[in-house]
Amino acid sequence: MKVQVNDVNLPYPPNNANQKYKHKGPHNNIEDTMKTSVAIIGAGPSGLLLGQLLHNAGIDTVILERQSPDYVLGRIRAGVLEQGMVDLLREAGVGARMDREGLVHDGFELAFDGRRERIDLKGLTGGKRVMIYGQTEVTRDLMEAREASGGVTHYEVSDVKLHDLKGGAPHVTYQKDGQAHRLDCDYIAGCDGYHGVSRQSIPAETLQVFERVYPFGWLGVLADTPPVAEELIYASHPRGFALCSMRSPTRTRYYVQVGLDEQVQDWSDERFWDELKSRLPAETAANLVTGPSIEKSIAPLRSFVVEPMQYGKLFLLGDAAHIVPPTGAKGLNLAASDVSTLYRILLKVYGEGRTDLLERYSAICLRRIWKAERFSWWMTGLLHNFPDTDAFTARMRQTELDYFVGSEAGRTSIAENYVGLPYEPIE
Amino acid sequence: MKVQVNDVNLPYPPNNANQKYKHKGPHNNIEDTMKTSVAIIGAGPSGLLLGQLLHNAGIDTVILERQSPDYVLGRIRAGVLEQGMVDLLREAGVGARMDREGLVHDGFELAFDGRRERIDLKGLTGGKRVMIYGQTEVTRDLMEAREASGGVTHYEVSDVKLHDLKGGAPHVTYQKDGQAHRLDCDYIAGCDGYHGVSRQSIPAETLQVFERVYPFGWLGVLADTPPVAEELIYASHPRGFALCSMRSPTRTRYYVQVGLDEQVQDWSDERFWDELKSRLPAETAANLVTGPSIEKSIAPLRSFVVEPMQYGKLFLLGDAAHIVPPTGAKGLNLAASDVSTLYRILLKVYGEGRTDLLERYSAICLRRIWKAERFSWWMTGLLHNFPDTDAFTARMRQTELDYFVGSEAGRTSIAENYVGLPYEPIE
Repeated sequence: MKVQVNDVNLPYPPNNANQKYKHKGPHNNIEDTMKTSVAIIGAGPSGLLLGQLLHNAGIDTVILERQSPDYVLGRIRAGVLEQGMVDLLREAGVGARMDREGLVHDGFELAFDGRRERIDLKGLTGGKRVMIYGQTEVTRDLMEAREASGGVTHYEVSDVKLHDLKGGAPHVTYQKDGQAHRLDCDYIAGCDGYHGVSRQSIPAETLQVFERVYPFGWLGVLADTPPVAEELIYASHPRGFALCSMRSPTRTRYYVQVGLDEQVQDWSDERFWDELKSRLPAETAANLVTGPSIEKSIAPLRSFVVEPMQYGKLFLLGDAAHIVPPTGAKGLNLAASDVSTLYRILLKVYGEGRTDLLERYSAICLRRIWKAERFSWWMTGLLHNFPDTDAFTARMRQTELDYFVGSEAGRTSIAENYVGLPYEPIE
Repeated sequence: MKVQVNDVNLPYPPNNANQKYKHKGPHNNIEDTMKTSVAIIGAGPSGLLLGQLLHNAGIDTVILERQSPDYVLGRIRAGVLEQGMVDLLREAGVGARMDREGLVHDGFELAFDGRRERIDLKGLTGGKRVMIYGQTEVTRDLMEAREASGGVTHYEVSDVKLHDLKGGAPHVTYQKDGQAHRLDCDYIAGCDGYHGVSRQSIPAETLQVFERVYPFGWLGVLADTPPVAEELIYASHPRGFALCSMRSPTRTRYYVQVGLDEQVQDWSDERFWDELKSRLPAETAANLVTGPSIEKSIAPLRSFVVEPMQYGKLFLLGDAAHIVPPTGAKGLNLAASDVSTLYRILLKVYGEGRTDLLERYSAICLRRIWKAERFSWWMTGLLHNFPDTDAFTARMRQTELDYFVGSEAGRTSIAENYVGLPYEPIE
């Protein structure tokens, strides 16, 4: 990896390169110290995308990641990209393979009561659509772009600590290959997910936590089989929710709602396929092509938001600040809109000295986040079976599905949320 | 009251008049027996409206009512009529005064966070609107029309009992002025509300009950003051929900959400006006004209549905089968759509012998009822404070309001429900 030395001072105009020097300060045992404009914690898709956008704008970054590149790429996650994220990936210059290999979907289907009802995303939103392209592929494209552009990413670092977040010398210390390092920076972007160190570096008493844990999980299977339908099918059934999704024309991703006490080892492939088929309309089930699973896992469902998403020089992005249940595929897309917001603010900070905008980052992000949290929560409630639901509530769910699917206003509401509400302006 | 004698037989072709004769059958102490096509239990707006529509079509009815006319007229109830009910009243020939004195509203307002946002009913629904005209006035018009047309209504009857609902000789017995009476009929329309005898005459084990009791009530005040705004204002506020409604340009109806333990005698007029003002945007509160209350009461909020709405020859209409919380003003309007459905079915029964349709009454009604139950439940949840709400749920409510008001699809969804979803076809 290339490390540049540069004597431009912080924080404005931008410190456009990494500085490496022996540290003379209060941190003992620091082997070396680097300097960058934006330290990015986490090399998942949001950290990498932010890094790429800033790099292209001439703003220097260093990314620190606890895991190896292969570990990061091994995570099986979302696969539905909103129009806004697609546009942002293109803007970052990493959209070429996505545009070649991704599947553009103009709609999706809701299955219930033995029927399938299509939500015409394109028709209902004036032309917006979604792109089916796995998070793994997005990450791979971003890794390659970062390597090609000479961006610095330190993988397999440990003991990451954030310092002086409210002071004049924010910096990050970490261990790598048995050596202690220090990274001085103007700002820190916390892209290290729900379990990461970034949010945990903020004094708990300054954060308000909003949380909902759902009484079920999703059992997911990845298989190299052709999709049962051209578009995604979200199925509501008395046995529980099911989702027929895909990553490509030859790779499918299916899910069934399971109880929190279920163990993945109790689910043979055969049992999974049988359960999935039982929750789909008969004709759909009859067309389902099964095959050996290449990944099988159970994920819990959770809604989670912390406010604010900023603490001094630290900014939280994506899962570090908020989690959505996967119904509606908002998680990765929300991370992308946080990236867009922080990127556009940093452009104005470094380009025009508009540091006042930094204080508005959290409020700008949260407006869109809460709406996506609402949609994910609502769609989860709409399509899943909840244990111990009284008869009235159960009937309200059925009626909600019936009303929303039967009303153009209802379908439009689903569609505009599914393709993604507009990114909030940063002014 | 006029009683006609007619020897036409039951049940088809219609028995177009009342028969009065000394009863020879198994009921002892019956002073006299009458005969009609449709016995209507309850002389509230749904019973009277059904009676008027059937009378105009040449189908004979007798209405039995426990209370006096003045008592019925003394009930202060809803005041917002959907387009469908307005059309039905006109069809029944009782729309003249409503069209003269009623206030046509093209929209209503939602107040929250110190602002007022208008829902443009007319613009969002392709021209549909609502009529502000009190239930009391509707009832008065219907009473006068029934008297003018010679329809039979027995007020202040007691000990009403429904007999042989599944058999070939359905009839009603009751006491009036110390005498026992019997009313033979083809069908019985149960329009006697939540506490009435009709639903209670159905074996409980044949009914499925859906119910939700809300943890608050509405304290309502009627006053002869000019309305604070031209349209209704539904206000969501940290202190609780409030509604600025009206009956006429000189008579207002205001409500505030109160706890279930509140007593109406603890609410002086002054306390009520102060509380109402505290929940409205400052400018709105400043314009509120107060005055002495002419009625003040607390009503609980409840969602309630029984299925099915038919038991043999007995058909339940309106509050006898379903209750909605008043948010969204659906109660009277739902009763009207039940009346419309039963009326149109009976037209085909008596006109074409289509008795098969009778078995479909419940299913046809319930499709629309459940959607109105959903809207009332949703709007209640959206605008009220719920005790013991966790932070996530509270934020979901705020976000739902924010999203729905900010989205044209969301506003359209509110508007199309508020003006009333289309009446279901009976075929």
